[in-house]
Amino acid sequence: MLIRALVPGDRPVIAEMLGHCGAFSPEEIRVALEVFDEGAASAGPDGYALFGADQRGHLQGYVCVGHVPLTASTWDLYWICVHPEAQRRGVARALMAHAEAHAAAHGGGRIVAQVSGRPNNAAVRRFYQAMGYELVGRIHDYFKDGDDGVFYRRVIGPPDPSR
Amino acid sequence: MLIRALVPGDRPVIAEMLGHCGAFSPEEIRVALEVFDEGAASAGPDGYALFGADQRGHLQGYVCVGHVPLTASTWDLYWICVHPEAQRRGVARALMAHAEAHAAAHGGGRIVAQVSGRPNNAAVRRFYQAMGYELVGRIHDYFKDGDDGVFYRRVIGPPDPSR
Repeated sequence: MLIRALVPGDRPVIAEMLGHCGAFSPEEIRVALEVFDEGAASAGPDGYALFGADQRGHLQGYVCVGHVPLTASTWDLYWICVHPEAQRRGVARALMAHAEAHAAAHGGGRIVAQVSGRPNNAAVRRFYQAMGYELVGRIHDYFKDGDDGVFYRRVIGPPDPSR
Repeated sequence: MLIRALVPGDRPVIAEMLGHCGAFSPEEIRVALEVFDEGAASAGPDGYALFGADQRGHLQGYVCVGHVPLTASTWDLYWICVHPEAQRRGVARALMAHAEAHAAAHGGGRIVAQVSGRPNNAAVRRFYQAMGYELVGRIHDYFKDGDDGVFYRRVIGPPDPSR
């Protein structure tokens, strides 16, 4: 499995994957594709970085990460999605490790992620905790009533040089 | 004092206010003006809403609020700034009350705000708590080393109808 940068031509496969993985609402898919279009079109340091897990030409999953504006070295793990037929094979773990290494190589000192607190999202939260993410906050009813926003953070680099 | 929507022609006064209030770095001012440009140019329901406190034609402060994408009814208080010569006169309180009423009138059920945890920002945090905001999370070193991100939340409306 190769982790590679995504390009605009990957869009149809990403759209299909987002629809089939079952975790995202139509509005979430629309926003994910907006972010894909912006990230895949520009390779600049300030936008979204997109990486896919490519198994002999077939994308198994992807991750989207980017520097948080107005922070010195905090990055956000905006999106991670694995095709249902490729789950439970370490794809998400490989994507996340690659995204963290990319952030660290570009000055990232920590990663944050914001995850749904819905009961049916418990596997995702366990995954973040298994990857070394620490629970740092919970906003009740953030996404909607009964769906909290749960915030995670992991330190990935040395302290900011400007301290 | 009149609270009114901001228009593109207010930009020079806003820029001067952001520079003089002493709370914002050059990069924060640059981002605040980008947000101003986007919000003042469009009156659509999905963008930023900007309101100023106008005392006989002189702007004393402003607030920026908007619906958080992918949430049912959560709004974010993105920015609030009061001219140093107009502080301690209830301007921030009036701006925040207006922003909350605007959000509630457009379906907002709760407001979140993200504030610097720096010791010299304690007055701002006290202000949020005095306005009924509850501390819901803290991400260490979020803005930079030694500068945490502190998250507040206030309920402003009834439960989501979709529950």
